[in-house]
Amino acid sequence: MKIKEIGEFGLIDRITKKPRNKDIIVGIGDDAAVVKTKKGLQLLTTDTLVEGDHFRREWFSPKQIGMKAIEINVSDVAAMGGNPKYVLVSLALPNDLDVKFVDGLYSGMWKTCNKYDIEIIGGNMTHSKQIVISITLTGEVDENNLCLRSGAKSGDFIFVSGQLGNGRAGLRVFQEDLKDFEKVKKAYLEPKAHLTSALEVAPYANSMEDISDGLASELNHICEQSKCGAIIYKDKIPIKYDVRKVARTLGEDEYDYALFGGEDFELVYTVSKDKLNKINGFLVGEITKDKALRLFSLDGEKVITKKGYDHFFYE
Amino acid sequence: MKIKEIGEFGLIDRITKKPRNKDIIVGIGDDAAVVKTKKGLQLLTTDTLVEGDHFRREWFSPKQIGMKAIEINVSDVAAMGGNPKYVLVSLALPNDLDVKFVDGLYSGMWKTCNKYDIEIIGGNMTHSKQIVISITLTGEVDENNLCLRSGAKSGDFIFVSGQLGNGRAGLRVFQEDLKDFEKVKKAYLEPKAHLTSALEVAPYANSMEDISDGLASELNHICEQSKCGAIIYKDKIPIKYDVRKVARTLGEDEYDYALFGGEDFELVYTVSKDKLNKINGFLVGEITKDKALRLFSLDGEKVITKKGYDHFFYE
Repeated sequence: MKIKEIGEFGLIDRITKKPRNKDIIVGIGDDAAVVKTKKGLQLLTTDTLVEGDHFRREWFSPKQIGMKAIEINVSDVAAMGGNPKYVLVSLALPNDLDVKFVDGLYSGMWKTCNKYDIEIIGGNMTHSKQIVISITLTGEVDENNLCLRSGAKSGDFIFVSGQLGNGRAGLRVFQEDLKDFEKVKKAYLEPKAHLTSALEVAPYANSMEDISDGLASELNHICEQSKCGAIIYKDKIPIKYDVRKVARTLGEDEYDYALFGGEDFELVYTVSKDKLNKINGFLVGEITKDKALRLFSLDGEKVITKKGYDHFFYE
Repeated sequence: MKIKEIGEFGLIDRITKKPRNKDIIVGIGDDAAVVKTKKGLQLLTTDTLVEGDHFRREWFSPKQIGMKAIEINVSDVAAMGGNPKYVLVSLALPNDLDVKFVDGLYSGMWKTCNKYDIEIIGGNMTHSKQIVISITLTGEVDENNLCLRSGAKSGDFIFVSGQLGNGRAGLRVFQEDLKDFEKVKKAYLEPKAHLTSALEVAPYANSMEDISDGLASELNHICEQSKCGAIIYKDKIPIKYDVRKVARTLGEDEYDYALFGGEDFELVYTVSKDKLNKINGFLVGEITKDKALRLFSLDGEKVITKKGYDHFFYE
């Protein structure tokens, strides 16, 4: 059996063991790991950018690649309700790469680290055929703010922090070489974590996750881990006019971008009814006892199967 | 300027900034980063194995690759005087890789993690052209046991924890397809961190580092960071009979293996005269005020220039 065939999900089940150490609050399977320390809870997360899969040098400047590498990891820490703290950078770089690329990459990483008051404290560098950037980020989280994928409760309302579909729309603009759409392109090249929103929501949310693989995929994670289902109100999904226009130009469906597209890095979170007045965001659905993930719209109801952005879009 | 031309050292200077946060005791440039927490000091390190550079699937079983990936990181934590604790695993894997490879890799990682009572708490998986395994390891260290590269003092004696040259000898046996030398091959395929030795030595050593790039290269790091020099007594360098035999079979010099070969993962540490009775190991030299790195032998004296194992041996 090849890696390609079983996909990430099957593999992750194969490699997951229940932690023995009681200081490990959350191990493999959430946005970040959570470990208990005397100071409180520490978050540990790692995410990798591979040239060709996660960026192309024709589209992204080295600085933008560096910014993205940090933002996507901050997004994982934010989705746990935490504050980012320290970064380790592992680079695997081709021999013939110009050193200016590394300078640009670091200038982007520093810029984003400064924004969040993060420090790069270590890393290593080695050679490879393809650029591979692995970032490890630590964070801190108050016990009361910790938001897991497993905390959603039947009856919770589902919110997203912002408009969806931009990641896929931006990718499609570049792939199809569409003219104009400068804002869509910029948002794709410079995705942002939503740390401030996450910290505002965290004390009140029952569960939270960042949207790296499409809303449907992330809600599937939450439903699986919380042993529940969800209804998404299709017509409530917030999508920018520009993103709709990209989809229409290409004869595609902007809701597919939002549900199954990737790399939006907005947050999805679930909140019980009595906390509704405490939080901001776009209401897009409800958590249900029934375990299916269903999409409601004026056209009727559909069941969404496990699907989503698979990170291998250049193949 | 290409990456290849400036090497790792120049690049690391370019990407290093002085930490602003006073909780960062050691940032980029040692075996691991050190950050202050209320519980004590935390160590954070990351190291990457790239197929072709750090392992070949014709030589290593998937299990051995997994074991090596953990051991080399434990070696970094050990060299700081610390105990390893949690692991994050970032895998970049080709599409056509058999899933059995991942199962084997994880069986090796688990085996080594169990040996050191480490837990794998997270990670991620993505696709790439080449297998790239990035491991992040955290650790804990008592303030009194922390051993930095910068702590060596003029007059210190230099010790190594075990016999050197095996890493390069093993590589050469495989490259030249030499028959026999089973022990050399096994030691190359299954390198071990020396955690117990490190923890015994740490309270008494002024500086310590693991030998991943040859004794000369590691002593260069210690001398640079401690603003001193060193004399190595060539004839005192411990080298196994089998390793000498490999070198002689190939018309090569076993001392080159020990000084400039890589991947021995023994420890080099420096100890002041009054602590000599507290520690074990092989005495191989002295720290000097004079900043050169010199090699003394019956044949006379040589100055060793910055050189060493460069991790790109398949080119």
